[in-house]
Amino acid sequence: MNQHHPAPVVFADRHLGPRGRETAAMLDQLGYDTVDALVEAAVPKSIRTQRPLGVPEARSEAEVLAHLRDIAGKNQVKRQMIGQGFYDTHTPAVIRRNVLESPAWYTAYTPYQPEISQGRLEALLNFQQAVEDLTGLEIANASLLDEATAVAEAVALMWRASRARSGYVVLDADLFGQSLAVARGRAEAIGLPVVVADLNAGLRAGVEGFVAAGGTLPDGDLVGVVVQQVGASGRILDARDVVAEAKESGALVTVTTDLLALTLLVSPGELGADIAVGSAQRFGVPLFYGGPHAAYMSVRKGLERQLPGRLVGVSVDADGAPGYRLALATREQHIRRERATSNICTAQALLAIVASMYAVYHGPQGLKAIAERVHTHATTIAETLRTAGIEIEHPHFFDTIRAVVPGKATELATAAAEAGYNIHVPDPDHIQIACDETTTPADVQAVTRSLLTALGGTATTEAGSGEVPSATVSPNGGPPGARECVAEGTSPLPAELSRTTEFLQHPIFHTHRSETSLMRYLRKLSDKDLALDRTMIPLGSCTMKLNAAVEMESISWPEFAGIHPYAPADQAEGYAELISTLEAQLADITGYAAVSVQPNAGSQGEFAGLLAIKDYHRSRGEQSRDIVLIPASAHGTNAASAALAGLRVVVVRTADDGEILLDDLRAKLDEHGRQVAAIMITYPSTHGVFEEHVREVCDLVHQAGGQVYIDGANLNALVGLARPGEFGGDVSHLNLHKTFCIPHGGGGPGVGPVAVAEHLVPFLPTNPVAPSGTVDAGRAGTPISGTNHGSAGILPISYAYLALMGPDGLTEATKAAVLTANYVSSRLADHFPTLYTGPNGLVAHECILDLRDLTARTGVTAADVAKRLQDYGFHAPTLAFPVPGTLMVEPTESEDLAELDRFVDAMIAIRAEIDDVAAGRWAVEDSPLRGAPHTAASVSATEWDRPYSRETAAYPLPGLRHDKYWPPVRRIDDAHGDRNLVCSCPPVEAFDTSETRN
Amino acid sequence: MNQHHPAPVVFADRHLGPRGRETAAMLDQLGYDTVDALVEAAVPKSIRTQRPLGVPEARSEAEVLAHLRDIAGKNQVKRQMIGQGFYDTHTPAVIRRNVLESPAWYTAYTPYQPEISQGRLEALLNFQQAVEDLTGLEIANASLLDEATAVAEAVALMWRASRARSGYVVLDADLFGQSLAVARGRAEAIGLPVVVADLNAGLRAGVEGFVAAGGTLPDGDLVGVVVQQVGASGRILDARDVVAEAKESGALVTVTTDLLALTLLVSPGELGADIAVGSAQRFGVPLFYGGPHAAYMSVRKGLERQLPGRLVGVSVDADGAPGYRLALATREQHIRRERATSNICTAQALLAIVASMYAVYHGPQGLKAIAERVHTHATTIAETLRTAGIEIEHPHFFDTIRAVVPGKATELATAAAEAGYNIHVPDPDHIQIACDETTTPADVQAVTRSLLTALGGTATTEAGSGEVPSATVSPNGGPPGARECVAEGTSPLPAELSRTTEFLQHPIFHTHRSETSLMRYLRKLSDKDLALDRTMIPLGSCTMKLNAAVEMESISWPEFAGIHPYAPADQAEGYAELISTLEAQLADITGYAAVSVQPNAGSQGEFAGLLAIKDYHRSRGEQSRDIVLIPASAHGTNAASAALAGLRVVVVRTADDGEILLDDLRAKLDEHGRQVAAIMITYPSTHGVFEEHVREVCDLVHQAGGQVYIDGANLNALVGLARPGEFGGDVSHLNLHKTFCIPHGGGGPGVGPVAVAEHLVPFLPTNPVAPSGTVDAGRAGTPISGTNHGSAGILPISYAYLALMGPDGLTEATKAAVLTANYVSSRLADHFPTLYTGPNGLVAHECILDLRDLTARTGVTAADVAKRLQDYGFHAPTLAFPVPGTLMVEPTESEDLAELDRFVDAMIAIRAEIDDVAAGRWAVEDSPLRGAPHTAASVSATEWDRPYSRETAAYPLPGLRHDKYWPPVRRIDDAHGDRNLVCSCPPVEAFDTSETRN
Repeated sequence: MNQHHPAPVVFADRHLGPRGRETAAMLDQLGYDTVDALVEAAVPKSIRTQRPLGVPEARSEAEVLAHLRDIAGKNQVKRQMIGQGFYDTHTPAVIRRNVLESPAWYTAYTPYQPEISQGRLEALLNFQQAVEDLTGLEIANASLLDEATAVAEAVALMWRASRARSGYVVLDADLFGQSLAVARGRAEAIGLPVVVADLNAGLRAGVEGFVAAGGTLPDGDLVGVVVQQVGASGRILDARDVVAEAKESGALVTVTTDLLALTLLVSPGELGADIAVGSAQRFGVPLFYGGPHAAYMSVRKGLERQLPGRLVGVSVDADGAPGYRLALATREQHIRRERATSNICTAQALLAIVASMYAVYHGPQGLKAIAERVHTHATTIAETLRTAGIEIEHPHFFDTIRAVVPGKATELATAAAEAGYNIHVPDPDHIQIACDETTTPADVQAVTRSLLTALGGTATTEAGSGEVPSATVSPNGGPPGARECVAEGTSPLPAELSRTTEFLQHPIFHTHRSETSLMRYLRKLSDKDLALDRTMIPLGSCTMKLNAAVEMESISWPEFAGIHPYAPADQAEGYAELISTLEAQLADITGYAAVSVQPNAGSQGEFAGLLAIKDYHRSRGEQSRDIVLIPASAHGTNAASAALAGLRVVVVRTADDGEILLDDLRAKLDEHGRQVAAIMITYPSTHGVFEEHVREVCDLVHQAGGQVYIDGANLNALVGLARPGEFGGDVSHLNLHKTFCIPHGGGGPGVGPVAVAEHLVPFLPTNPVAPSGTVDAGRAGTPISGTNHGSAGILPISYAYLALMGPDGLTEATKAAVLTANYVSSRLADHFPTLYTGPNGLVAHECILDLRDLTARTGVTAADVAKRLQDYGFHAPTLAFPVPGTLMVEPTESEDLAELDRFVDAMIAIRAEIDDVAAGRWAVEDSPLRGAPHTAASVSATEWDRPYSRETAAYPLPGLRHDKYWPPVRRIDDAHGDRNLVCSCPPVEAFDTSETRN
Repeated sequence: MNQHHPAPVVFADRHLGPRGRETAAMLDQLGYDTVDALVEAAVPKSIRTQRPLGVPEARSEAEVLAHLRDIAGKNQVKRQMIGQGFYDTHTPAVIRRNVLESPAWYTAYTPYQPEISQGRLEALLNFQQAVEDLTGLEIANASLLDEATAVAEAVALMWRASRARSGYVVLDADLFGQSLAVARGRAEAIGLPVVVADLNAGLRAGVEGFVAAGGTLPDGDLVGVVVQQVGASGRILDARDVVAEAKESGALVTVTTDLLALTLLVSPGELGADIAVGSAQRFGVPLFYGGPHAAYMSVRKGLERQLPGRLVGVSVDADGAPGYRLALATREQHIRRERATSNICTAQALLAIVASMYAVYHGPQGLKAIAERVHTHATTIAETLRTAGIEIEHPHFFDTIRAVVPGKATELATAAAEAGYNIHVPDPDHIQIACDETTTPADVQAVTRSLLTALGGTATTEAGSGEVPSATVSPNGGPPGARECVAEGTSPLPAELSRTTEFLQHPIFHTHRSETSLMRYLRKLSDKDLALDRTMIPLGSCTMKLNAAVEMESISWPEFAGIHPYAPADQAEGYAELISTLEAQLADITGYAAVSVQPNAGSQGEFAGLLAIKDYHRSRGEQSRDIVLIPASAHGTNAASAALAGLRVVVVRTADDGEILLDDLRAKLDEHGRQVAAIMITYPSTHGVFEEHVREVCDLVHQAGGQVYIDGANLNALVGLARPGEFGGDVSHLNLHKTFCIPHGGGGPGVGPVAVAEHLVPFLPTNPVAPSGTVDAGRAGTPISGTNHGSAGILPISYAYLALMGPDGLTEATKAAVLTANYVSSRLADHFPTLYTGPNGLVAHECILDLRDLTARTGVTAADVAKRLQDYGFHAPTLAFPVPGTLMVEPTESEDLAELDRFVDAMIAIRAEIDDVAAGRWAVEDSPLRGAPHTAASVSATEWDRPYSRETAAYPLPGLRHDKYWPPVRRIDDAHGDRNLVCSCPPVEAFDTSETRN
């Protein structure tokens, strides 16, 4: 044993499912001797890369953790009093441990299959209820990506709702800088003019001021106004005048506001707003250097069908019991390509759940108490500074005070930073100090002392010492320090701005006050759901692979979680290193020149990529290029992104085998000539195959002067084997939550970096506000997200994955994904044939199982099979995408042979059940397929009138007796839910079950 | 709102269940206006303390975390190469996140109710299987407290098994120091002489050497030998000669050994040993500054009924399916008072589970690969030092090399520490360097370089630079550094010592190689179990209260988890501060002069307390005092501890109401006079009441010259209200996993500090090895645990609890515990009367529900009710303790009214079911009570021949339809399991279920 000692276990061996004899058995099934031989056969030579991956060699879990600690150590955690939409907060430990750090929550998929998602749907419904209550509007969605994009979405919503052919919107000049930047960029992309006006004296005065200052009022009507209730400057605006004036003009009104402030302030609904938007970050979600956080949007009744994002609604199941589901899904997710208006169907589910549980835990009294503390601290700071002779600009503020310090702002901020406090410097003559839940009396004292000392002002001098005199800090004369500093005198919140209405009256916000109770509620909800911690989730195109515990570990370290996005660059050097390294590695992996991680969802990456193409053409004087060619097989969001970017869509036909019809492509290129901006293709295609002619497609488009956009959704089939940037792409977006192991989180957070070739680098998104870091140097495109690095706080996950896998591990993962997909496809060939195959009859990393013939013969639908799989303990594959009547299966590299066989065996058993229908054993309506899923209550009810046995319903395979998941509801009625739209928490009585002992 | 800002939420509000209107409703039920009035009525004035608690005011969660970070920062984490039974290891992140940090695992109770504990029983059975395989012995238990006490238990086992009236044991002089110290102390307490001998040349030679050196051979036969296979000095002993010689003498042989080494070394079973013991720490359990870790013990067939500790066995359930349970429970847990021989029925379940999952994850090949790496690194160090001219003492070693460095050991250790490495200095002339799983080639190079540089020896000088020449580090001439250093030449493990037999052949050690698979296995197991994260666990005397997430957070920080127990004191200053503060706070809370946290279980605390009393009497020349008076109502472990301490037990009678009969006490004191060492009482008594006459009892015993031992098991009913040290106690032990929030862990870790009055302080346990810290100054008693501070690594939990609660919160918790117990007792009064009450008809913190009359009338037993509660989703109360035919309920302060009512409603519903039996509706044999628990499979089977409905079986209350726990097995047959003892993993076929679709 002494000759050569064995190497430590490499992480890739833990990440990958198949190994050793398992791999051999799978290859046997497929008729190949080695994985390499299989891959050679499956992947066209023409696209294979010749260059090894430019990432460092694999390191062990311990090494990577140590390395991440080093990087984290280069960030400096100071007390963050910058505000501007990002506030420090205490994530209750019970929520951190049982949500953020629980695989049952973070590995869950988007709740498209409602029966196995009742827990997270309930959590999201609580989120909606909290937003509806606090904003005073009837319908809230289940979160948006960030506050800035939420403002942009509100603008787009007002524009859509107005149905005007021309018009403009007015934006409050006191919106957060990032909101202004993103909303303007998005409006500009769709050609909607924007007027930025000071609304403090009302709408009319604001617009007049804009014109007086040389602005030109755009053509058409005013379609909407966005006003920020608690402004970037800290002022609280009484928005009633703005609303009245807007209504007079027939315009809609969006109020941007702060959920915590709304516990004290009159709500947007009461103000007459149509729409409210903002961030739920300060409800327990860490700063994360700017993201991910959940934004929210709520609307008044009548606008719900215009609402972007996901919306949880209440419906009934097959037994008439209440059941949650995503409502009005056709608005966004399943919209037809040519109708697409917005691609925001992504959300920040995990963060919205954290925020909702924060509200559940604190309840209305707790939230109000926090708000009052925050406000009192801000008031104390204001009074202290005023007492020292410093002018405080706004009489009415919530958490942020703005002090007038002519010429001294930078110096003061430096002094505060030296004392450990980051404050905001909007311009050289002002400082702003924002209080939050974590602010303590000691903080109030220390930050004011640092400022007064730096000013060397009267207060300090008079006191005759370095100490701030107690009278200054604590106007009521009490001793400073641990004791609370209470400001007396007039409240900065006058009665007309104060909230008098109740909120969070639903019992859920009054039940779980003890940690024990909340812990059990979280467990109970997560137990209702199926996530990766219980079963494979074989969702085609969604790549539900392992999210390793070690990858997740560092994100809650204070050095990553506690950094404000506008912290000075020298406090975020760890982030700068991590992000620039990650961007460089992703660029290498994809074969592009540069990557921006700013887009915080795949949809945003797409949008950013198309804007880069559009700007590129424009920079060359080719404004006419406004058509995007999209193959018929493309993902719906492709078209939606094109619409968002102000581009027109022309569809290119695909052959029966899913390949783009080159003749039709040539025809379309001829027809549209110099109008063609780009083609958007997915590779491997959404049909799950490696198309042979992709280079030819790219060449044709390039010859026509167009750009090639390669959707990176399926990049996990390419890493280490091929590079989109090498075989013809000019732009791609990636999904870090697919290929690069960021957990799906039940529907967010996502990260959607955009990768571009050299000539497009200048058009990568720029920082939405004045740059703090410098990694974006040389990028000047439209900002896409509210912060420069998007969902920065979760980037350590992908960084860790790359470090752990190394070049060989990453390539092995790709090969294993091809192996597992082909294994499943092959084993199911006689039961559910795969619709499309590529070279040598092989698929890429996923396979589309064609049920259409079976459906035609038996009436059993793909949906029946999807629901029946729940009885077998599985999350369904992707249903009816990209081809109606099919199921798309993507096993990923992380599933081992045992789990793959468990799935295949279930599918084969289901096929036998379908055959029973075909054979007339049961009518399809009476079959276990249509009856699925079966709850424990239904199979144990005294009454059982089905032609199949209870055992067939519940335990169709023997293994289920040892490991049975019970869906908490039976099949949910989608149509009922949309007809009877309820998007708030149902009363407790709705769940009353009258059955008792008999 | 500006007048006085509200205080932040205090943690106590999260820890406590009842609040506001709930509390009022509960008081209403009891007829009191305030909680204080209730407490006044329940707690005798005579015992109330007048002094407030001496702990700091409550701090917030954030403040306490920050404070703990400060303390942790005072520990220094170096690379630990000290060895001596404690080795650094990589806890796989998937295990840390999904076991150590998962409330489903850490809040579970000991698996006495097997039906709701199948998950953790399976995990522990895997542990037993791994130990059995590796040690080559047939029956392993489910862990012991630490290696040192395991050696002591082995000695006691050999002594019991010998049935000799006199005799002695021989201990290997090369046992770890802590094993020698603890085993000697325990043997001395029971009067068993010990001979410590050098066994390197065999048993006879060793004993002869002992005599030759002036030792006196004790009377009687040699009853057993303990030999350490991989000695404290690092040497590997070929134990075959020792075994042969021992067998010749008719003695038993215990081999102490290292599980990792056993992947390479011939096993104790193959060597002919009867018993094997050791630590499973290095299987993934952090160093934790010495504990908690799981020790193991395995025995050959024939000794299983002598085996201490818990033993998981396989039995069958009511449907004939396999089910796990604790086997041979009557050996220890339920032994009659007068037969008690050992109180070690506690274990380290959570740590054993971590170790078992480490074995499951790595499998035999993985473990062997780790062992080979460790061994190779040690070999490289040895070769390098030898090459430099340094003598290596032992030719055969596994992980630890011992170098002869006359007079230079301390200097070298200092040099190594400066380079970041802690090594071991057994004496001034030797150093020892131990390699472990975390050792890297770079470590090997750095530590040897630091030593050679310090020696200034030939190697360094010859190389002409500060660098160690590569030839020295890497004898095969390869470049040093990241590259592995491979030593050539003769292997230090000769063939006759090498393992040739297989181990871990069961499929469980070959199935979960990917992280995904292990994550799902962990989830699947935990889903089978009921822990605090799903339901209250109303176990009388076990105090299953909240284990808050924030309290758990710091234990996995490297600064707490990564400290070696023998690290120099200046590297453990954080621990010293934390431990001395905690000991002082516990002393204040209990009213004693001092506390030692060394005992790592309540049983050990008891033992330590009794030894202190015994030593105290002895120090005053009163050796004759060897009788301990124990009331009839006492916990069984009291008597067992007395036996362990070599004391005799005399039982004092108790009245019908549970109070000690003062007349009988006087009589016993008169009768035994100067033989009385102490009385052991529990307060509040195990009957759950505050006895009025406790001061009188104490006075009587004191007058007779005896000491008063007050069992602190029920301290949670006293904290802030009364102090045992004030109302008569001389000694108490506490249970930090009861009153002070350390989670139960499924049956360990526990911490059982012993608290003593001033005159007993000198008899507190001393450090088992040369002192490293100094907090034990002035303590000179028998060492109790393997390390000075016992389960040091989890003390931050209790420390955090005290800091979070503050004096008021702690007192409120006590009051709330009294409130909830009385509420349950009162609401159930008409259904299940409470057996004993104290002043004003009130109970203390728990109540004994008397079912004996119901049982007599209906045949329904307390066990039936306990099992039926599982159908209602509850863990049963304590069954048949302290009174057969009863259930003891302790709700704790952490349960809110909703959960208390859920429990009460279930009990009332069960009472109605009993009434149905009484009314003749069903025979008891056919009743849902006797049929309980009901599995999902049983209630959904086509066949249903019970007189009650399926709904009655599964959903007897409507709320269960929304939150149903399904027991994975039906009632388990205890007798079958003990008759057919199987303590290894059953073959997979055992679980085959032939049912398929029909």
